[in-house]
Amino acid sequence: MHIFKEIAPLRDHLKSLRSGQSSIGFVPTMGALHKGHLGLINASKNHNDITVCSIYVNPTQFGNPEDLAKYPRTLEQDIDLLEQASCDVLFCPSNTVMYHRAEPLTISFDKLDRILEGEFRPGHFSGVAVVVSKLFNIVQPDIAYFGQKDYQQVMIISKLIEAMKFNVQLHVVPTVREHDGLALSSRNQRLSVDERNRATVLYQGLRATQQGLIQGLPLSELRTRVAALCDSKGVRMEYLEVVDQDTFEVKESPTRAVILIAAYVGNVRLIDNLVVESQDEIA
Amino acid sequence: MHIFKEIAPLRDHLKSLRSGQSSIGFVPTMGALHKGHLGLINASKNHNDITVCSIYVNPTQFGNPEDLAKYPRTLEQDIDLLEQASCDVLFCPSNTVMYHRAEPLTISFDKLDRILEGEFRPGHFSGVAVVVSKLFNIVQPDIAYFGQKDYQQVMIISKLIEAMKFNVQLHVVPTVREHDGLALSSRNQRLSVDERNRATVLYQGLRATQQGLIQGLPLSELRTRVAALCDSKGVRMEYLEVVDQDTFEVKESPTRAVILIAAYVGNVRLIDNLVVESQDEIA
Repeated sequence: MHIFKEIAPLRDHLKSLRSGQSSIGFVPTMGALHKGHLGLINASKNHNDITVCSIYVNPTQFGNPEDLAKYPRTLEQDIDLLEQASCDVLFCPSNTVMYHRAEPLTISFDKLDRILEGEFRPGHFSGVAVVVSKLFNIVQPDIAYFGQKDYQQVMIISKLIEAMKFNVQLHVVPTVREHDGLALSSRNQRLSVDERNRATVLYQGLRATQQGLIQGLPLSELRTRVAALCDSKGVRMEYLEVVDQDTFEVKESPTRAVILIAAYVGNVRLIDNLVVESQDEIA
Repeated sequence: MHIFKEIAPLRDHLKSLRSGQSSIGFVPTMGALHKGHLGLINASKNHNDITVCSIYVNPTQFGNPEDLAKYPRTLEQDIDLLEQASCDVLFCPSNTVMYHRAEPLTISFDKLDRILEGEFRPGHFSGVAVVVSKLFNIVQPDIAYFGQKDYQQVMIISKLIEAMKFNVQLHVVPTVREHDGLALSSRNQRLSVDERNRATVLYQGLRATQQGLIQGLPLSELRTRVAALCDSKGVRMEYLEVVDQDTFEVKESPTRAVILIAAYVGNVRLIDNLVVESQDEIA
C-alpha cells in the first residue's frame, strides 16, 4: 500500500494511474477502522481498479472540543487492516496540509443542515461538506463510498455532488451491526463494557419504532416509549425522528421512510438509523 | 472550435485531450465578449495547449431580476469572436444543465462576501462561488483566467480554490480600458452614447483618489469629492473604498492598496478598481 501525507505526490501517483485508464474508488474515513469501513473498502475493490482510503479526523466538523480530543486514533492498526484488505493507497494528511490557514468558507444546505444532526451539531455539515470537497478535489475518484449509518451525511454529500457537479458517483453501503444490533462506529471504542451493552438500546428503539409505525401508532407516542426505554438503560435520547428516505422531509407514513436516533451513552454520543421499505410493512 | 451544451460530451472530449497530456486553460465568462475577454483567451492560448471558454449568464449571482433580464446576450457574435481568437472549445450550457433543480447549497466567505459588492449584492458571491465550482469540476482546467476588473470576485475565487483544494492555478489579467479610461465591461453595451461618455467618471474618480491618497488626504474627504464629481455627471456613486490588495482589510496607507468604486450610470451599475503599488507613490 502506498501511503501519502502530502497532496502533490498523491496527485502525481493517481494521475499516472488515471492516464492508464484505471478507475479510482475512494473511501474517506476518520480512521479507527472497523468492519463497517472494511465493507466500504471491499465494495470499492469490487468495483474499481484502484482503491484509495483517506484517514483524517477533520476538526471543522466537530463542534465539541472534547469529542474531537477523544475521537479514537489508531493509525498503526488502521494501516495493518488496510494492508490486509489490499487497499492500494492511503492518504493521511495533517491539519496543516488540509487547512492552509483558517478556513475561509462555509457551506450551507438550505434546511437539511439545520435539522437532526445539524440541529444538535451546528456547523457539523459545513465541516463535512468542505472536507469532502477538498478530498474529492485531491483524489478525483470515480466512485466514493459512504456508510448508511451516517444517513444524513449521505444526503448532504449527495446534494454536494449534485450542486458542485463533482464527477463522482456516490455508493452507499448498508450499516454493519454487531450480533445484538449495535451499529459499528469508531466511537464505540470509547464505551465501557457496561456502556457497550446498554448501547444496544438505540437499535432496539429503532426496531420498536419501525414496528409501531407499521401498526399505525403515532410517532409522538413511540418517541415517548423509546425515550423511556433509553432512560431505563441510563441512556439519554437526543432525538428520534422519521423522515422521507429521499427528500428528508418529516414523514407521517412509514413507507420509504428512515427512522433516525441519536443518544448519549455515558459521555459518548451515538447515532443510528433504520430504513423502512414497503416490504417491511408486509413482513 | 468545438461547441458543447451538455456536460458529458464536454467531459469526454476534454478527457481524451487530458490523457494526451494537453494542458487546459479555462476562461469562464457570461458572454457579450469584449477585448477584456479576448485578453483572457489570448493569455490562456499563450500558456496552454487547449483553451476552453464558457458562456453562461448565471442566474444565482444576480440579486436584481432586471439586471439579469437586461444582461447583454450576443451568442452568435461571441462565437465569431472566439473563432477569430482560435479558442478551441466553447461550453454554453442551459440553466437546466447547470442547475438540475433548485440550488441546494450556498457558500459563505466569512466577511469577504458581505462588504463592497457583497453588501450591495447580497448572495452574489455565493452564486459566483457555486457556479465557478460547477465549472471547475466540469472543465477541470490547469489554469483559470479572470479579469482584474472584478477584483473582489478574484479574491473570492482565490479563497475558493484554496479552501476546496481545486487543482487549478488562478491567473489574473489586468483590466482593459478604453482610450478615456473606461474599463471594458459587457454592461457598457447597455449605456446610451451620453451615458457612455459620462461613465468615464468612475476611472477619473479612481485616479483622483489615488493621487489624493499619495498626497496624504483622508479617504473620507476624497470620497466626498468623488461623490460630488459623480453627481456633477449625473452618476450616483454607491461606494468608494480602499482595501489591502491581499487581505481585503480596510486600508489607511495607500501602499499595496486597491481602490474600488461602484456607481450607477443611468440604470446601469458599473464597477472599477485601481491598484496602488509602492512605485505609484514615488511617481
